[in-house]
Parts: sequence; structure tokens; C-alpha cells
Amino acid sequence: MPNTLAPILAPHRTVRAFRQEPLPDGLLERLVAEAQRAATDANGQMYCFVRVLAPGLRRTLAALAGDQEHVVTAAEFLVACADLQRNARVLRHRGFTPGEFPASGLHFAIVDAALAAQRLTDAAEAIRLGTCYIGGLLNGVEEVIDLLALPPGVLPLFGICLGWPAEAPRERPRVALTSVLHTDRYDAQGTPAIEADVAAMARTTRGGDWLKVLSKYFAAGGTMEAREASLRRALARQQFAWE
Amino acid sequence: MPNTLAPILAPHRTVRAFRQEPLPDGLLERLVAEAQRAATDANGQMYCFVRVLAPGLRRTLAALAGDQEHVVTAAEFLVACADLQRNARVLRHRGFTPGEFPASGLHFAIVDAALAAQRLTDAAEAIRLGTCYIGGLLNGVEEVIDLLALPPGVLPLFGICLGWPAEAPRERPRVALTSVLHTDRYDAQGTPAIEADVAAMARTTRGGDWLKVLSKYFAAGGTMEAREASLRRALARQQFAWE
Repeated sequence: MPNTLAPILAPHRTVRAFRQEPLPDGLLERLVAEAQRAATDANGQMYCFVRVLAPGLRRTLAALAGDQEHVVTAAEFLVACADLQRNARVLRHRGFTPGEFPASGLHFAIVDAALAAQRLTDAAEAIRLGTCYIGGLLNGVEEVIDLLALPPGVLPLFGICLGWPAEAPRERPRVALTSVLHTDRYDAQGTPAIEADVAAMARTTRGGDWLKVLSKYFAAGGTMEAREASLRRALARQQFAWE
Repeated sequence: MPNTLAPILAPHRTVRAFRQEPLPDGLLERLVAEAQRAATDANGQMYCFVRVLAPGLRRTLAALAGDQEHVVTAAEFLVACADLQRNARVLRHRGFTPGEFPASGLHFAIVDAALAAQRLTDAAEAIRLGTCYIGGLLNGVEEVIDLLALPPGVLPLFGICLGWPAEAPRERPRVALTSVLHTDRYDAQGTPAIEADVAAMARTTRGGDWLKVLSKYFAAGGTMEAREASLRRALARQQFAWE
């Protein structure tokens, strides 16, 4: 199945170069209102966004994410967070005892936050804004908690840059549709499907070698392992950990 | 800030009643291709969808989710999964040792899957399909793993019903925009903001009492706690657990 099926939504391309022009008054709020319309488990809305306006804070976050200058230069920068505290606050205020469910809470709050974020960026791209998700914020997750004064029950998940694009990057490649779509049961790919993905993903890097990027992040000793210890500490500190 | 800012995307309403009419040939694939365009950390695409066609399997999943009949009657039903196995498979095939990062892996794979899912449902709603997320699949997460033969590294997250709507539900309420949007640091709401949200959310239930739903799910002894033990076992079994 080709990945060239006619698109319905505005194309997504990660934009890292932005024009120095703010969003019109009220547009950020309109985009967050759009995000709020996303589906949410039990209407729990277990997320929040921290809009970062202070220039010094932007610079610190950009550095933590691995010198990602677009965190500073984007018109808007949001930190998307899982938020279990808000519902607990309402319950306590009305005399209920909040439950304890770190694993379920983490699960549903990350889902809620990401659904809202994607609806926000789909809306942004529909009006020609450029967007860039910042997963690298997790490289300094404990510092982000301190900097944004996130209380227990709240966990930073990723950043979102928004602004008017000053570049028009090419679409990045993806694995075959059949690699992400199974029928009735999980279908572990055989060698031909793996090799087809390796070929399709080659242009991820200038050198044409997907394995270079893939191993840098996902192999033993890679970036994902490097994020592990700090994230575990952050999960414990924010009360998202279990035995 | 009112939540009535003019919308950009098609409105989202959870649809649970569907016309008995299939999607045109190729449309589901087109929607999944759209999902694939979502942002993904390190282009890792750490997710997959299992499309459930077998009627018996649909009925079992509908029952596990708490007798949600629309899982059976929707034209399409997908189970969105976190998938760390696919990248590990590619790495192993090319002679690399996959890393071990259960916490980071869970984090980024849930984000990737939910971003892709929301892009899929935004595209679906843009062409007037109705959608319904099924968080209740987590009530039987271990059974879902067995039924879909999900290998270690793959975790079911939620279901998605897609089909032509046979109902036009009202938009459900949301908390105030200021309750999900903070500036520079987390802002724990005071009593007036909490009471405003309780009032705004009242029409969540027929009886006009949000706390009834909120406590049913999020208070001690509620649905979120009930999901906890089984999810923890599933996380351990699928190799997403740490100390």
C-alpha cells in the first residue's frame, strides 16, 4: 500500500525556522480551545499546557532540550503536561478522596495530553502555522519540573513550537503503511518488509542510512536509554510511580 | 476566556450510533496514511494500529470494554498500540543490540500513538465520519494482549470506532481555557476557578452534577483505580515495567 494516498489535512512538516512575527491577539487561545475539543477519557481532561513567555525561561528550556534554538525563536512555545492534579483538586474541594492510580493515571493522562496537542497542531497547520514538537525536553525533565513549578500529579511530556514558517522543509519519510496497520492480530514483519522500510526510510539522513539515526536513539547506549534514569526519578517525584 | 472561540477543524463529538454502511474501499488506508504524517520522536513511529475485522473478535472486545455495542456496529474498529518492537526488530536484523528503556519507551510510544490517532480522527471528522475513542479497552488490557497476539514491546492503549454517524450529539462541556493554559509556571486554581469549572461541567450528566462522574472515575474506589492492577501486570508482561 503506497503512502501517497491523497491527504485530507494540511501537510505536516516539522518547521524549525520561524519568522520574527507574533501570532495575532487571541490566536493562541483559539488554538488551545481547539485542543480542548479533543476526545478525553471520562471527560477527565487530564492535561495542561504551560505557555512560556519569559525569554530567560525559553533560553533555559532550549538549552535543556539540546540547544534547540527554535524553542527561543518560535512565536509561541508550550509545554504539554499530564495533569492529574486538577481533578484531584476539584474532588478534594468537594469533600471526596482522590484515588491513587499512578499507572492508569500516567497512561490516560499522556493519551489525553497528546490527543489535545495533536488537535492543536492540526488546527495550527490548517491556518499555515509551522509546528515543531520538542521531545528533547525529556532530556532535562527534572529541571523542567523545577522551572515550571509543576506540582505532584503533573508531568512535562513534550514541548510545542508554533510560529510563521521561514522554511519549507520536505516531508520526512515514513515506514510502509502495512508496517503500522495490522489486521485482527499483530503481524511481526519478515525480512522483505524490514528491508523495504530500511530502503523507504533511507532519506531520513543525508548519508542515506536510517540505521545510523535508529541506532543512535534506540540501540543500547542510545538517547532513549540516556533519558531513562532521569525520567524514572521524575515519575517517582511527581507520584506517577508504582512498586 | 470563553471556550466559544471560532473553531478551525471540524467539530469533534463522540459518536456512538453508526449507519450500517462500510467505508469506501481504500478510505481506512488513506486515514492511516494521514495518521502516519503526525510528528514522532526521532522519526521512531513507535505505534501500530490493529484493524479488527473478525466479527467474533469485535464482540469480545466490545464486551471487555464494558458492553460498548458501538465497537461492533462501527464500520471500522482500530486498536491503537504503543509499539517498541518494530524498531528493535529492524535493529536486530541489522546486527545492533536494541536498548532497554521501559519508562522512556512507554512515554514516547504512548505520545507517538496518540498523536497519530488524533491526526487520524481529525482527518476522519474532516470528511464527516463519526469517531469514538474507547478507553474502556483498558478494563480488559490483558485479554486484549492475548486476543490480538501482541508481543512484548507492544501495549494496547485505546480503541477507535469509525463510521458514518447515525446521531448528532451535542458538544460536551469542557473546563475553562484558563484551567488548562498556564503561563510560565503551573497555576493551581483557587476556589472561584474550581467552582466555575464545576458549573461549566454540570451538563456532563443529565442530573447536572459533574462530581458524580468525576468521583465515579477519579475518586478512591473509582474506575481509574479499578484499572490499575491489570494495567500494571500488562506493563510488566509487555516489558514496559521498571524496578
